[in-house]
Amino acid sequence: MSERASESSALGERASESSALSERAGEPRCTAAPAPEVLLARAYLSRVAEPPAAALVRFVEQVGPVEAAARVRRGAVPEQVAGVTAARRAVDRAEADLAAAEAVGGRLLVPEDPDWPTWAFAAFALTGDPELAPPVALWTRGPGRLAQLCERAVAVVGARAATGYGVHVAGEVAAGLADRGHAVISGAAIGVDGAAHRGALAVEGPTVAVLACGVDRAYPASHTALLRRIGEVGLVATEYPPGAVPARHRFLVRNRLLAGMAEGTLVVEAGVRSGAQRTAADARALGRLVMAVPGPVTSGMSAGCHELIRAGALLVARAEEVLEAVGRLGIDLATAPARPLRPTDGLDAVQTLVYDALPARAARDTRWLTIEAGVPAGAVRPALVELERRGLAEYRDGRWQRPSRRRPLEG
Amino acid sequence: MSERASESSALGERASESSALSERAGEPRCTAAPAPEVLLARAYLSRVAEPPAAALVRFVEQVGPVEAAARVRRGAVPEQVAGVTAARRAVDRAEADLAAAEAVGGRLLVPEDPDWPTWAFAAFALTGDPELAPPVALWTRGPGRLAQLCERAVAVVGARAATGYGVHVAGEVAAGLADRGHAVISGAAIGVDGAAHRGALAVEGPTVAVLACGVDRAYPASHTALLRRIGEVGLVATEYPPGAVPARHRFLVRNRLLAGMAEGTLVVEAGVRSGAQRTAADARALGRLVMAVPGPVTSGMSAGCHELIRAGALLVARAEEVLEAVGRLGIDLATAPARPLRPTDGLDAVQTLVYDALPARAARDTRWLTIEAGVPAGAVRPALVELERRGLAEYRDGRWQRPSRRRPLEG
Repeated sequence: MSERASESSALGERASESSALSERAGEPRCTAAPAPEVLLARAYLSRVAEPPAAALVRFVEQVGPVEAAARVRRGAVPEQVAGVTAARRAVDRAEADLAAAEAVGGRLLVPEDPDWPTWAFAAFALTGDPELAPPVALWTRGPGRLAQLCERAVAVVGARAATGYGVHVAGEVAAGLADRGHAVISGAAIGVDGAAHRGALAVEGPTVAVLACGVDRAYPASHTALLRRIGEVGLVATEYPPGAVPARHRFLVRNRLLAGMAEGTLVVEAGVRSGAQRTAADARALGRLVMAVPGPVTSGMSAGCHELIRAGALLVARAEEVLEAVGRLGIDLATAPARPLRPTDGLDAVQTLVYDALPARAARDTRWLTIEAGVPAGAVRPALVELERRGLAEYRDGRWQRPSRRRPLEG
Repeated sequence: MSERASESSALGERASESSALSERAGEPRCTAAPAPEVLLARAYLSRVAEPPAAALVRFVEQVGPVEAAARVRRGAVPEQVAGVTAARRAVDRAEADLAAAEAVGGRLLVPEDPDWPTWAFAAFALTGDPELAPPVALWTRGPGRLAQLCERAVAVVGARAATGYGVHVAGEVAAGLADRGHAVISGAAIGVDGAAHRGALAVEGPTVAVLACGVDRAYPASHTALLRRIGEVGLVATEYPPGAVPARHRFLVRNRLLAGMAEGTLVVEAGVRSGAQRTAADARALGRLVMAVPGPVTSGMSAGCHELIRAGALLVARAEEVLEAVGRLGIDLATAPARPLRPTDGLDAVQTLVYDALPARAARDTRWLTIEAGVPAGAVRPALVELERRGLAEYRDGRWQRPSRRRPLEG
């Protein structure tokens, strides 16, 4: 599945329109579009329990989605499953939800689909934490193919109340990542999230917006155009059924999906208690890399980032450093920032002492220089010759001094 | 020696004026002012070799300073010692140097003096690195007692071309450290160094300026008044004899003393290649803690700090975090930055789901809320009662809603 995905464009045609491609592989499952009854069952199941629904996900894995949906409907389920499904089990809007998604150009992405990010989401099961249950299904909108996007993806998250600095850095880093083919995963919120999506879009790179509400809703309203654009060229995804309203706990629950879709999570500006820190905690629990951008210690908006770095998150300043950390070995290595070169680079110990002893104006003879530099007598002359060769010493009437244009003393 | 030192004020009387105190301990050495011939010998030795002079320091340890000086004078020394002393061995300005120091209110601090920071400097020998040789002696000026100051000391160093941000943070952190009794060790340069000294002086706290020139010189000239003040209430120290001029390599060599005198070195703003990074490298080699203050990733003046943190230096944002890292166990623990409290703090999972499901305006009955929240039917009513108790839910004519003043959705 991941092989097939990596052969085609991440922003290519929808999976359901490319069955020809998926048929040739001859794999036992996940190669064709899922059956309609599976979609109906998962659509029902995606509404019947509030995520994260660990007990329900386990039950579906055990008996399959169609059987699971039928049993949930009639209440013939284990106690734990009953606890999270009893309230809504009589509500079946599966067909209406599928139609509502289709009406906005969306669809239901299910684990039985070749575009499901099976490998990325496998980490959820490994944590054993019920709060970190994978989604039952994802409602998506856009041409992006999630399984492939998750192969090279970084979650870029941060404060809604970002400063100009945070917005700038989020946009720059996201553009750098997207430009090198990494999908920028974020939450479409104002502030850092929006800047990250826009940074990716600006270089026509891949980006995924993971919502805490229905795929047919634009939240926040001020990001209506941004979400429309992501739906045209990237991917909008949510585990909440159409019409679902954003709620405070849903933003927190949603954050695990941001972390789960990405190789690493980068926090750009966050207060000491913030949703971004929750996403970082989820990423750490999922065994993913946590990174943070530092900022002025005088800015409360960077305090959460500094806290993360002090707790072990990797400090990153540039997209290259993110890529080096999450990227494929040996391919995405960051080049070190350029270091200023000095004419005195490469001088040996004696040459350095002699150079430092050289007077700026009143030239001195080699005997004076030997004492001032504190080097053996025989060593001062070869050192002066080398310094002269480098343009670091001037010889005048038997005496030595620095060249006329003097350099500052300290590095 | 360190016991005695900690009983009296760090900025108290000069050691030579307090022999009564030091006599009672009955320790075998280091309790009385050193003999004049030791001072003369060390004064001669401090000029005869350019620091760091590992071979000379070893030789002095083996035969004692008086014998070492006599042998160096007549050239009767091992080859390695001859190599570093041959050029200047005929120059004996010991008496003149001691007089020059005294003329500016200074003196020569030698390892035989109770104020010598024996414990702090012991780390030099442990490195086995000849570049990290301890000084032969220190020319000092001021009432500060070095051995005691080094017991609780932090080196605060950084760029000369510091930004307003760096100057501000250096001053704030240094004031916080000095206010809690930690000596601020720095190099008296413009930029971060000067701000660090001034921060300590501003709270009348201890500070030590370690120079790369003679104790009778004020470099940089713009810090003449600052150095005078440090000499009045703190301590100015240098391994270079009176009259010695600052030279580029001397700043680098001097940096090991900054690192060696302090429990930890804090870098506040530094370019990717800087003297501060050299001090940090020395501190690491000496087994001392390296700390760095982050800043905007858009600032080249913070790039060196970020590089240090990526290489393992501790990110610190406040004096309290420095003290927690270098301070005595359990005494200087930093208190966590204040976290905002929310009315929803402490709600359990069901209460959170019900709270999020509560409509802001059009009140709903418990049946509707059970379905919307997706919780078991019997669980919604106790949750509502608790929410009402906390002022998070309002009951009106058999229906529930949020209190009139609504809170924002996302954390």
